[in-house]
Formats: sequence, C-alpha cells, structure tokens
Amino acid sequence: MTFRFEVLHRDAGTGARAGRMHTAHGTVDTPVFMPVGTQATVKAVGQDDLQALGAEILLGNTYHLMLRPGEALVQQLGGLHRFMAWPRAILTDSGGYQVYSLAQNRRITEEGATFQSHLDGSKHVLTPERAVAIQEALGSDILMALDECPPSRSERGYLEESLARTTRWLQRCARAWSRGPGALFGIAQGGLDPVLRRRHLEEVCAIDLPGYALGGYSVGERPEEMHASVAEVAPLMPADRPRYLMGVGTPVDLVNAVAAGIDMFDCVLPTRNARNGWLFTARGDVKIKNARHREDPGPLDPDCACYTCRNFSRAYLHHLHRTGEILGARLNTIHNLHYYLDLMRGLRGAIEAGELPAFRGHFRERRMIESQAG
Amino acid sequence: MTFRFEVLHRDAGTGARAGRMHTAHGTVDTPVFMPVGTQATVKAVGQDDLQALGAEILLGNTYHLMLRPGEALVQQLGGLHRFMAWPRAILTDSGGYQVYSLAQNRRITEEGATFQSHLDGSKHVLTPERAVAIQEALGSDILMALDECPPSRSERGYLEESLARTTRWLQRCARAWSRGPGALFGIAQGGLDPVLRRRHLEEVCAIDLPGYALGGYSVGERPEEMHASVAEVAPLMPADRPRYLMGVGTPVDLVNAVAAGIDMFDCVLPTRNARNGWLFTARGDVKIKNARHREDPGPLDPDCACYTCRNFSRAYLHHLHRTGEILGARLNTIHNLHYYLDLMRGLRGAIEAGELPAFRGHFRERRMIESQAG
Repeated sequence: MTFRFEVLHRDAGTGARAGRMHTAHGTVDTPVFMPVGTQATVKAVGQDDLQALGAEILLGNTYHLMLRPGEALVQQLGGLHRFMAWPRAILTDSGGYQVYSLAQNRRITEEGATFQSHLDGSKHVLTPERAVAIQEALGSDILMALDECPPSRSERGYLEESLARTTRWLQRCARAWSRGPGALFGIAQGGLDPVLRRRHLEEVCAIDLPGYALGGYSVGERPEEMHASVAEVAPLMPADRPRYLMGVGTPVDLVNAVAAGIDMFDCVLPTRNARNGWLFTARGDVKIKNARHREDPGPLDPDCACYTCRNFSRAYLHHLHRTGEILGARLNTIHNLHYYLDLMRGLRGAIEAGELPAFRGHFRERRMIESQAG
Repeated sequence: MTFRFEVLHRDAGTGARAGRMHTAHGTVDTPVFMPVGTQATVKAVGQDDLQALGAEILLGNTYHLMLRPGEALVQQLGGLHRFMAWPRAILTDSGGYQVYSLAQNRRITEEGATFQSHLDGSKHVLTPERAVAIQEALGSDILMALDECPPSRSERGYLEESLARTTRWLQRCARAWSRGPGALFGIAQGGLDPVLRRRHLEEVCAIDLPGYALGGYSVGERPEEMHASVAEVAPLMPADRPRYLMGVGTPVDLVNAVAAGIDMFDCVLPTRNARNGWLFTARGDVKIKNARHREDPGPLDPDCACYTCRNFSRAYLHHLHRTGEILGARLNTIHNLHYYLDLMRGLRGAIEAGELPAFRGHFRERRMIESQAG
C-alpha cells in the first residue's frame, strides 16, 4: 500500500480544497484535524473514544516515544499502531520541536541535534537519518523530516543559516527514507519573513516528497500575522500534495487556513484546554469552572452530538472540574475533540457543496453567542 | 415502585444465596459488588464504561455530596441519577463513616454528629433525620441509616454506649424515613466482640426494615478474624432481607462472605488500587509498574473479556503507568471492576448451579499462579 493523496473538490472563491489521503491504515478525509497522542495516548481519552469521535489519524511525538518506551521496544511489540491498539493512520513528528522546547543542554550542529532527556538527563543524538529510522521503527504512516524551528526573535543571519541547514537535513532525510509504506513530508520554515518563507518553501518543495508542511507558526506571533503569512504561502505549495500546517491552532485559525488551502492540522489546544476546563463550542468558548455553570441543567452545547453533550449537564461538568475528578478531563476532551473534528467535517461539507463563504459567516456569527453571555 | 428482594437460590452446603433486588432503577442480581462513586463519579471511569461492565448499582457518598455540590442542588437538578446520568440503582451511605475518617473537629452527641468540612472548614450537623433527608433529596434507591463506627480500640464502656446510641439513631432514621421508593437499611456494629455483635444485630433487626448491613469490618483487623466474625453473624440476619457487608473487601473476603450468606458489598479497593497500578486477575495480583511487564506483549489476563484485556498489552499498561497518563487509570479501573463484577457473576452462577464448593476451590488455586510468577 503506497501513500496517495487526491484532491476531490476545490472551492471556487478561495484556495480551499477537500481531498483524501490513502494510507496503509485507512483513508483520511481532508481537511483534517489530528488529535495529539504525545506518549502513545491522546491525553484523557481512550482509543474507543477516538474511534467513536471519527478520528481518522492521530499524531505521535517522536521525542517522547524515543525516550519512553523507546522505538526499539515499540517495534518489537509490533509497531505503534499495535502498541496503542489504534488501527487507523498515525503521523509522527520528527522529535525536533520537543528537542528545542523540552530537552536540556541541546546543541545543534550540521550532523544533527544533541540533547539530554528532560526525564533522566540521558544523552541522545537526533540526526536526520535517526529521525527517519525512529519513525520507520514506530511504523508511522506519515513521517516528518527533521527540521530546526529557530526562535522567532533570531537574527537574520542565524535564520538563513538555520534554513539552509534544514534544507540539507531534508535532503539527508529523503536519502535515509526507505520509501516504505510511511510517507515522508518535508517542512518549510522561515517565520514571518515573506522572502525567507518563499525561498525556503521553494527549496523544500524542490525535493519530490508525498507531502509538505509549514512549521514555525503559532509560536507567539499575532493570529492576524499568521493568517496573512499562511494565506500568502499555502497557495505556493504543490497543489497535488497534502499541505500540513503544524501545531495550529484555534478554531478561527483552522477555518482561515483551510480557506488558504491547508489540508492538515494538529494542535494540543482542544485536549490541553479540555483538561483545564476550557471548552470550545459553536457558540463560543466556555470556562466550565465559572460559577454561572454551577446550577445549569443544560448541556455545554445544545446542538452538539458528542457523548458529553448528549448525557451531561454543565452543572455536572462544573462539579467534576471543581472536584478534580478524572472523568471531567475525559468528558471535556471528548467534547473539545468532537468540536474540532466536527468543524473539519463541516468545512469539508461546505467545500463539497460550494458553500464555504456561508459556512464561514455562520461560524463567525455563532461563535459570538457564548462570549457575549460573559 | 416499592423496593423488593427475593432469594432465588440457596447453596446446600453453605449459607450462600443468589437473589434479586427490585428498585425504582432496575433490578440488581445478588450477590452484588457496588463500585464506589464517591463524588457522583466512579473515579477514572465513565458511566458508559460502568454500563458496559454490567454494573447494576453504584454507591454514592453522602458526606462528599452534601458538601459538594450539596444535596439541594442535586435535587434541583433532578436527583443524583439524573445529575450523573446513571439510569440504574444507587445506594448512598449515611455520611457517618466519612465524618469520622475525614472531617475536622467532629463531636458526637445524642443529637447527631457535628463536624467541620475537610474542604473549607464550614460547620455541619449530621443527625439521623438529616442523613435520611439528604439521601431522599439525592433520590437514592437504598438509604443507609446514620450509625457510629467506633474506633476498634475503644473501651468496652464506650462501645456499649455507642451501640445503644446507634440503635436510638436507627429508630429516629426509621421514623424520619418517608417510606418512599428509597429503601432504608439498618447497620449493626459491634466490632469483633461476639456478644456485642449479636446483641446489636438483634436490636437492629428488631426494627422492621427492607435490608440490613454489617458495619465496622475491614478497619484493621486480620482477614481471618473478619471472616470468622462474619461467618458467625451473617446467618443471624433476616433470611428474607438483603444482607450488606459494608466496605469489604478483597476478592478472598468477598468469596468467603458470600459463602456466609452476604448479598451486597462495596469497597474502594478495585478502583483505588487500579489507579496505583495494582491489578486483580483470576491468576493473582499484578503490579503493573514492575519491570517484568515492560516488554510483555500479552494481556493482563488472557482469560479476561474486559475492554482492557481484549485490546491492550501489559507493556502498554506499564507504559501508561510509568508516564502517568490518565488513560492508564481508566484502563486499569475498567479491568479491576470487571474482575470484581465477573467474580460476583461467577459466584451467582455457581450458587445457581449448586457448584459453589468447586468454584471456591478453583478460585483459590488460580489466584496463586501470578503471585508465584514473582
């Protein structure tokens, strides 16, 4: 089974498209949101919940999995799909981002990144070749190339150097890749500098790969800056390959990026916010710990079809949050992931029906209701 | 709908019986284990999990619920069943036990127990009348009378005084009880003293109630002492009423107490131990954090039909435990509750088939396998 992507519908007025990825672990309809399963589990929910939610692809974190339990053990146990009993598609990142954000004593050389584990201080080297080997050992359906995500306030000199190195690393990743069932995606960096972005994207896309990603967004810039940059860059990516905007974002970010022509997203926002009691609804965001929900017999969102909204009141979710009960984390996460996955289903349907402008207008209007409730 | 209990089968060689309780929220086959849902949730699992496990009745803690969210709010929201979206039966304790074990500055008088909340220091009075009123406000199917569980090392003088007061409290509970759909159970105390136990049981059972319970076990005595005492006392309880052994216990405790004629159990052991990685299996207990499970591709128990054992390896459960992932708590709890509920199903089946001695022998033999594995 070779990885394959097809664009099925194109929106007339925007760059949006609806498509389908074919992987060794089933098809993935795009645009798609990938729940983040950092340590071989999407925090607070089960694989049964994810299947019930209709998730078609999860993201796994190479940095975490290489440290614990280690890719060799995962491979020995039959690969990541079998290890976590997830029969559908999995994308893994390269590990690079966590090396920069979590690891200690990291050092970047031409060879790769050396670092110490944030868990036990053990020393590791992550080269482009090793990043590919780990992801192939895990059995990922989509592998991400090792890149550097340079700090957003880097000097231009360092930025240029970093981008050139990321390109050389991508060439090494492409050579190391077995061209097995897992598809290797390249990552274009460049921050908000339009010249650097375009130049690096050209370099990355000059290497023929099954898909391409934009990295280095959602790292502190204003949403409008990100939206403008993505709107400019996404159309320059190969039209016949999936386009993945890494680590993004809010519901508004997703809707705007889909209109710009992005096909894939991942973000910890729905899952992390759920555990903190921050819930996304079609009518806006709800902070379930607030006193106004204490006696509310109604569901989070009366129009939501998720397990949480079909069965439980805001008062109950408020109680679970206040008492710190584990079930609260699960019910909140089910709801937030349902919201994200349903938003993507809505966007796909709107693109297919040629109704994206109406969908976007309706989306913006309704999101105001809850925030006006205070 | 009035509460009703029927004994359907009696074991020839022991005091064991299989029966059925009819409640306003469905039938409950006995002997039964009641998962503990302290704060309107059984820790780490969902109501969907509990239904899939075949749980027919849960236990709720009056002390916790009266403090948070408060029984008035639960009542306003339609009662505890609706609040937590649990359609089947619920038994609530009286709150007394947590007053003695959790609350601050507690003082017991003839009137009742005064105490300060362990949460915010607020002052409360729990009288027999109030314990009944709270449980009726919650909408419990089975209400427990307010008792005092005197410290096991109390002087005999205090013990006798306490037992006499508990009897007077029970009379007050019986008077306060609306005789609505919720059934009031009386509780006999008396520690391990055979004379006091018998005398108090007689006093308690002299008050005509839908069911009776034994309290004050599993509070530090040796298992053999408890088994001997229960074996002596259980047959003295009215044969046509459900007999409930409160707060007990280990799998061995349950098997022995069922043979003595006990019908109902509750205990935090399966749920609390699950969250600590202590798993019960037909072959013995497994501590999932142990290194020997790290690379084990097999299930916790190859003969177990629970969601956890059907889908996940010991290696995966070990990984979830080591990484502190929430899913580990849920999968472990599902397994432990399945083990307890399945053990009760096995006991019921054995009683019905007249094969309890063989079942007990097989149970003891198999429980040794895992502990011998070290």
